[in-house]
Amino acid sequence: MPRIKVNDIELYYELSGPEGAPVLVLSNGIMMGTASWIYQKAQLEQHLRVLLYDCRGMWQSDHPDGPYSMQIHADDLAGLLDKLEIENAHIAGISYGAEVSMVFALLYPEKTKSLIVIAGVSEIHPLLRAQTYPWLLAAERGDPDLLFRASYHLNFAEKWIMDNSAFIETSADRYAQLDMKALTWLMHAFYELDITDQLSRIKAPTLIIAGEEDLIKGSKYAKIISNHIPHSEFAVIPGSGHVICLEKPGILNTLLLGFVIKNSGSA
Amino acid sequence: MPRIKVNDIELYYELSGPEGAPVLVLSNGIMMGTASWIYQKAQLEQHLRVLLYDCRGMWQSDHPDGPYSMQIHADDLAGLLDKLEIENAHIAGISYGAEVSMVFALLYPEKTKSLIVIAGVSEIHPLLRAQTYPWLLAAERGDPDLLFRASYHLNFAEKWIMDNSAFIETSADRYAQLDMKALTWLMHAFYELDITDQLSRIKAPTLIIAGEEDLIKGSKYAKIISNHIPHSEFAVIPGSGHVICLEKPGILNTLLLGFVIKNSGSA
Amino acid sequence: MPRIKVNDIELYYELSGPEGAPVLVLSNGIMMGTASWIYQKAQLEQHLRVLLYDCRGMWQSDHPDGPYSMQIHADDLAGLLDKLEIENAHIAGISYGAEVSMVFALLYPEKTKSLIVIAGVSEIHPLLRAQTYPWLLAAERGDPDLLFRASYHLNFAEKWIMDNSAFIETSADRYAQLDMKALTWLMHAFYELDITDQLSRIKAPTLIIAGEEDLIKGSKYAKIISNHIPHSEFAVIPGSGHVICLEKPGILNTLLLGFVIKNSGSA
Amino acid sequence: MPRIKVNDIELYYELSGPEGAPVLVLSNGIMMGTASWIYQKAQLEQHLRVLLYDCRGMWQSDHPDGPYSMQIHADDLAGLLDKLEIENAHIAGISYGAEVSMVFALLYPEKTKSLIVIAGVSEIHPLLRAQTYPWLLAAERGDPDLLFRASYHLNFAEKWIMDNSAFIETSADRYAQLDMKALTWLMHAFYELDITDQLSRIKAPTLIIAGEEDLIKGSKYAKIISNHIPHSEFAVIPGSGHVICLEKPGILNTLLLGFVIKNSGSA
Repeated sequence: MPRIKVNDIELYYELSGPEGAPVLVLSNGIMMGTASWIYQKAQLEQHLRVLLYDCRGMWQSDHPDGPYSMQIHADDLAGLLDKLEIENAHIAGISYGAEVSMVFALLYPEKTKSLIVIAGVSEIHPLLRAQTYPWLLAAERGDPDLLFRASYHLNFAEKWIMDNSAFIETSADRYAQLDMKALTWLMHAFYELDITDQLSRIKAPTLIIAGEEDLIKGSKYAKIISNHIPHSEFAVIPGSGHVICLEKPGILNTLLLGFVIKNSGSA
Repeated sequence: MPRIKVNDIELYYELSGPEGAPVLVLSNGIMMGTASWIYQKAQLEQHLRVLLYDCRGMWQSDHPDGPYSMQIHADDLAGLLDKLEIENAHIAGISYGAEVSMVFALLYPEKTKSLIVIAGVSEIHPLLRAQTYPWLLAAERGDPDLLFRASYHLNFAEKWIMDNSAFIETSADRYAQLDMKALTWLMHAFYELDITDQLSRIKAPTLIIAGEEDLIKGSKYAKIISNHIPHSEFAVIPGSGHVICLEKPGILNTLLLGFVIKNSGSA
Repeated sequence: MPRIKVNDIELYYELSGPEGAPVLVLSNGIMMGTASWIYQKAQLEQHLRVLLYDCRGMWQSDHPDGPYSMQIHADDLAGLLDKLEIENAHIAGISYGAEVSMVFALLYPEKTKSLIVIAGVSEIHPLLRAQTYPWLLAAERGDPDLLFRASYHLNFAEKWIMDNSAFIETSADRYAQLDMKALTWLMHAFYELDITDQLSRIKAPTLIIAGEEDLIKGSKYAKIISNHIPHSEFAVIPGSGHVICLEKPGILNTLLLGFVIKNSGSA
Repeated sequence: MPRIKVNDIELYYELSGPEGAPVLVLSNGIMMGTASWIYQKAQLEQHLRVLLYDCRGMWQSDHPDGPYSMQIHADDLAGLLDKLEIENAHIAGISYGAEVSMVFALLYPEKTKSLIVIAGVSEIHPLLRAQTYPWLLAAERGDPDLLFRASYHLNFAEKWIMDNSAFIETSADRYAQLDMKALTWLMHAFYELDITDQLSRIKAPTLIIAGEEDLIKGSKYAKIISNHIPHSEFAVIPGSGHVICLEKPGILNTLLLGFVIKNSGSA
């Protein structure tokens, strides 16, 4: 499992798929790891070059002291692409990773072949802050059980939870392995996000995807982003909660594959 | 402030309005007190006899050891009406109080002149259990700050929260005065609720009211109740979250007043 | 069946209920008659003085040559109240009648004790114009079958239509008795409506009611009205299409009765 | 413009894109022609082999006497593929064409590489029948102006209509060139559709697409189809009415391209 030095820290990454194919970066949600993209990687690496990685503070990358910011994450990703000699790429991410991706598209337009925003927001409304604030409390207290209890029902559609109880039960164990201190830095970086007014500067082809049953970052937020990037495409996924990559991998892969191929000079 | 002996405990109550007018009972939500009905009492007591009270375990009533159940609450309310020599009444409640009211209507049909269900449920879906489970955690831990942080955004519409920040801030103080042990008994009584299949036995005139922006006990649940009580009336309140009595008192009072007068023999 | 001279024409009206009780005016929708209020009249006249009437151009009132306007209808209603020696009243109406009522409240605030807007609009969006334009075509061509075919599915919720097929079948016969020329004048008066900007001048207590399944004048329009009359109350009726008075008479009566009594000085 | 003999009639078709690429068939909506796919053809023929055609009764194909049926259309398409020596294909269609496509997938599973249902239905509810019945009336009367007036607001989202008034105005002219007699046969074939119970037999990869603002064949119908084809993918397009191919071509092309490539053996 390769790690590479970027901006004085080491980032963990996985690069797969045919050399020469268009490169698709997939950035993680805040409590997700690269393994959360299992369904995307398996299918998309048949057609695309897929780059997974952990942001600083996440899982197998370094967890330097904070504060973090979306700009630091974007700089890290730019550094990672440079080290891997990838000139530009299709930049996708889910939730926290979607927000990193939008900031990357703003700071590094020349490296952004296209932008794909999955279950992301460009500003933080009081409800979203209130919904997620118990996560920060849990992280500050080092309480993974509370973190789990305060989050899983916001992350997945009710029906998916009922159909995937085994996965849900192991989530609590996964949360016990989280670096709670790093999670507080990630949460604070999230709470500073406020880029709606800058979105109109994004000229890259943009695709916005929202889960119809996402209780925290649903289509209300996606419409704000869509309205501020007039040329953007927009799809809503019925039956999906927040974690579209696990809940509805089939349609997400269709969207990712179609959008990347359409926007790659010579597919 | 009168208290009265019912079923070996003392219940706190407030009775106001013209003697001889139709009696309307208003049962509290789980963390509410009689003061939460301030807007209803002020206006409705001009036309109706209004009975407010605290269930066992709430505020100024006794907090005997648990377990509690909806049936025990219904028996308490029946006992209270007997002691007050009220033969029958229009039985209304919000949230927890709506659920007490439905069980009362099932157990005491002869005392139920009409039934009004405000922001209530007849069964508990996994999402609702998951949303409220952190409340139980907080109560078990005796942590009013967590209780506040895990609940206020579920109780009120986002816009109402922004427009009423002073109220919200004092909520944390109010929660510090809650009897946390009693709250766990109330929560457990709630989690045992499962009366959908019995609702068709309710013959009393029934009115169901839901807040359009209620995130925990919204119109999805109200439609279940409405479908199982075919003769029922049903209204949804736009712009209201869960605590309709505070968020939209005007339209709630219109509904309560109209329904009670319509269903009182000689108004 | 009484008719009375007002503004050089004769208007048909029905006045019932106890003398001295608060007066509630109910204005018809465009293809409705006073008989469409059958469920309201039967129940509300036990508590209120109920005034039904046909606007000029409708059924049993005179059908003078047009053009008509909402202002002319409001003047007619003011004249009718004068002739009946009713100083002021609670002014309610459905659809076309709701729009007449809003214009009346603007022109005759001193006669408006309260205002109740049922399934009404304050401005006409392209979709609403397009949806109803075939009605005008049918009226111009004197084609009641087309009028029926182009309107009934917009007027009632799909389930109500299925449950009331006998009523629907007789609608075509009723439409054959319409004065098609007068209907074109009524339609043109409707298309000129544009009062959103004036609504904030309405100081009377106001109640707005919309059917959740109303396909032509649903809650989108009601929210515009609600936003422009900040003190207004607002309820949405689940399961109801456009003709709430026939589809959901129970809850409509609750709302009318409660609102009128609440806003009558000495009920 | 090529026409080819199939089942004793001549069908008009257009075949473009690289030979050897996966073949995508796009079947028209009821009043659409091959030109309605202009945005799909221009972009997708860079990657795929695109087959457009007119069903019998539409535009440049023969208009033999009816009655027509979805099965006859499916047989025609199968015959067309045979004549063009296309063994199997990705079968897509919009509205009427989506319904032809589902019946084709049921009758010719071996020729169906994948199925894409855009704005289609599998059964006809009373509302849909009532909404479209004035189209049949207009066709029977040979009245293109009525046809236009009774349909355009159901076919496009309100905002799209406002933004594309020039297109809308020319629609009336296009309708004047329709074969009204053939249109009645097409309408009757549509009204006989009732295949929901058969959908579970479809084993081909299936993608279902609905416009969020489609007033006639929206996501309510798409969910029925989705529920009966459990392995299907499903996306809803915000801001789109019924004619997704014209209203939101960008996201539709993304979905079509991604789904076809994903389901083509060796892309």
